[in-house]
Amino acid sequence: MYIELLREKLGKDNVTINETELLRHSRDESMHVASKPEVVCFPKTTEEVVTILEISRQYEVPVTPFGAGSGLEGQAIPVQHGITISFEQMNQIVDFAPEDLTISVQPGVTRLQLNKYVNRHGMMFPIDPGADASIGGMTATNASGTTAVRYGSMREQILTMTIVLADGTIIKTGTKAKKSSSGYHLNGLFIGSEGTLGVITEITLKLHGIPESTVVARCTFDSPVLCGEAAQTVLLSGINVMRMEFVNANTIKRVNEYGSYDYPEKHSLFFEFAGSSKAVEEEVSFTKELMNDLGCDHWEAAEDPEARQELWRARKEMSYAFRHIKGVKAFSADVCVPISKLPGMINYASSLLEKYSLKAGIFGHVGDGNFHTLMTFDATSEEERNRALQINEMIVNRAIDVGGTCTGEHGVGLGKKKFQAKEHGTSMELMKSIKGLLDPQGLLNPGKIW
Amino acid sequence: MYIELLREKLGKDNVTINETELLRHSRDESMHVASKPEVVCFPKTTEEVVTILEISRQYEVPVTPFGAGSGLEGQAIPVQHGITISFEQMNQIVDFAPEDLTISVQPGVTRLQLNKYVNRHGMMFPIDPGADASIGGMTATNASGTTAVRYGSMREQILTMTIVLADGTIIKTGTKAKKSSSGYHLNGLFIGSEGTLGVITEITLKLHGIPESTVVARCTFDSPVLCGEAAQTVLLSGINVMRMEFVNANTIKRVNEYGSYDYPEKHSLFFEFAGSSKAVEEEVSFTKELMNDLGCDHWEAAEDPEARQELWRARKEMSYAFRHIKGVKAFSADVCVPISKLPGMINYASSLLEKYSLKAGIFGHVGDGNFHTLMTFDATSEEERNRALQINEMIVNRAIDVGGTCTGEHGVGLGKKKFQAKEHGTSMELMKSIKGLLDPQGLLNPGKIW
Repeated sequence: MYIELLREKLGKDNVTINETELLRHSRDESMHVASKPEVVCFPKTTEEVVTILEISRQYEVPVTPFGAGSGLEGQAIPVQHGITISFEQMNQIVDFAPEDLTISVQPGVTRLQLNKYVNRHGMMFPIDPGADASIGGMTATNASGTTAVRYGSMREQILTMTIVLADGTIIKTGTKAKKSSSGYHLNGLFIGSEGTLGVITEITLKLHGIPESTVVARCTFDSPVLCGEAAQTVLLSGINVMRMEFVNANTIKRVNEYGSYDYPEKHSLFFEFAGSSKAVEEEVSFTKELMNDLGCDHWEAAEDPEARQELWRARKEMSYAFRHIKGVKAFSADVCVPISKLPGMINYASSLLEKYSLKAGIFGHVGDGNFHTLMTFDATSEEERNRALQINEMIVNRAIDVGGTCTGEHGVGLGKKKFQAKEHGTSMELMKSIKGLLDPQGLLNPGKIW
Repeated sequence: MYIELLREKLGKDNVTINETELLRHSRDESMHVASKPEVVCFPKTTEEVVTILEISRQYEVPVTPFGAGSGLEGQAIPVQHGITISFEQMNQIVDFAPEDLTISVQPGVTRLQLNKYVNRHGMMFPIDPGADASIGGMTATNASGTTAVRYGSMREQILTMTIVLADGTIIKTGTKAKKSSSGYHLNGLFIGSEGTLGVITEITLKLHGIPESTVVARCTFDSPVLCGEAAQTVLLSGINVMRMEFVNANTIKRVNEYGSYDYPEKHSLFFEFAGSSKAVEEEVSFTKELMNDLGCDHWEAAEDPEARQELWRARKEMSYAFRHIKGVKAFSADVCVPISKLPGMINYASSLLEKYSLKAGIFGHVGDGNFHTLMTFDATSEEERNRALQINEMIVNRAIDVGGTCTGEHGVGLGKKKFQAKEHGTSMELMKSIKGLLDPQGLLNPGKIW
């Protein structure tokens, strides 16, 4: 019935119950159980999203937005079925303003598509979660990644959004000015709300100039604690690194096995420096000095693009090295803690992995205190899977206890729901009443966050 | 009656109806009409704030928070009288974590007090609105100032807050981790809400290392448009300036008269560069080159602290130069627009001043597109005052029309209420319902923003 109405309003070609499409929209990159929508819609405009939400309201059918499907906590999985809004066809650049260093895009534009578009004008959009995620999905989950140490999360890079509310109202949040003290900051509220408060249909982003020079470097230490301390030292020194990543010895070993490389199998720090040539030159030599003082080995730096890629390969291929084995599932814990707690946290995670003898890598964006424990388990073994989940739970609880958060960048989705009360305490009631205010019928991505 | 109860609960010394105190808490630095509270309370703890809000609720008495009284839009003026909460005695450093580059403070701590405390550890809190504002007030208005081009506004520098809600619930927003994708971002909502959604009683801030080297520079151009274009060029070049300020020729003239100086009476750009010595050196020479290409005159740079002060004097004393005359009131318009619109906006403001022949200076944080038109008028002339207000209104309307905001950093308070509907459109209803949700009795700083 409501599907007929969707077809009528959006056109037959933009509404499908094709089994392949339902399946494609039933899962993301996480290990969360797939769940098919009843129908997938492919709107092209904000007005068409309004139409979908009207029908959703009228027939009380849940609505789940779907970007690129690269999420890691099941945000795009329609656990209560209903309508999935795929943004595949809302992938247009709406307004590029190089003179303001801003660009407005539809939510289905992907990160690589966006950068391809702006790179030829000497600009870049720096947030890099690894996957070729959609800008809409990155906004909805407040994504970040390797460059957050310099550019923050999506929250810091968004000026305005167009959002369709559950009641069909179209709102615009923020302005195109770089800062404002006017009214309530709705950007902050909607970014990271995972489609539970409204459906984002346009996003205006800040752009940045492509730095003149880029140098990458890598060094190794005897312990994760030393790596953590080294990262802290760089931060305190005020060096404005572009990326600063930790990869533990086990992971390097796995990468070596996977690709027949011979990277030094020790706990490693990976750096990227970017800026004007002279500034970068100086930062590299200063960092090298700091790292040497802390007792690092194997310092290597590269400026040439190919050599840079070679040097970072161990960091880049890490995830594949764990995921490539057939029948093995991988699952990434994602916590973020105050920097000073990072060495202790990495130690804690290492000891758990040893105790529970699970194959795993530990790596992360150490400049932010954000690290991942990528655990692999036999897809057919319920016991191994539970062990991974148990370790995740212990890591998360410890992270919250030391003043951190249950998710640095993957979002809450399905996997971090159980930690919301512990992390947010009394403010969770307020969050829930905001949800109630904005979505009284509970139709916007139900089953997520709360 | 309720005042007696306040005395009983908080102690006689912490509750006053002394006329001098009522008067002191009846105004801020703006030209908005003073209005006395019925009583001023000086709590020392979050729990005492809860007590005050309980009594406010029980007796339906409005509550207005008061920091340092340095606001420029009347946010701290208790227009509906009732209770003023002065944070004068909540001025303690709660927790300093140098290893995390964070500090937790009570809201009454002022900006200079904070910097004095952390400077000796080689750190600084960079947000600089000029006045020695309280951190609570700066948080409530999302203050920024000359360093926003590098560090953003308060919103970008706050990790967590303790907030007392209207119903007496104490909540904590955010975590001490540098980033998070967990739950709804309540920090964004409460920062800039001017005490209308809850009372902030503790704030955890990010700190930054004091840069090794600082150089200031100044140059002049023939027109404000050229200054705007020059600022845009610097931004696009990726030079990470610490400050970049525009001061128009009229203002320089006034400063010369005021202090018997002989600064070149032309439209001027002031720069501050900060970082490692070599990086700063390179930035200065690169900027000089860029400015020369654009046809600047009088390029001067200084590294020595005294010479630096000398060079920036015209920018520093500007406000006094306009305000020092007896019987003259000054009032500062505060809009922020996309960078590309700035030259046109400055031109528009200049033409209005000329047309209405009002004495005024134009200056601003051009790296953000945020500029002020400081207008002076005879305190006894209703006509002159109205002319200033009319010009302000025209500037604000134009700013919103070109995609900007009615307030870059001073906040809404009393003066920008009338522009909220135009700026926020359909999202204003949502903002108002959030206000209704959090303050159903309308007792939290009533008469502000809405």
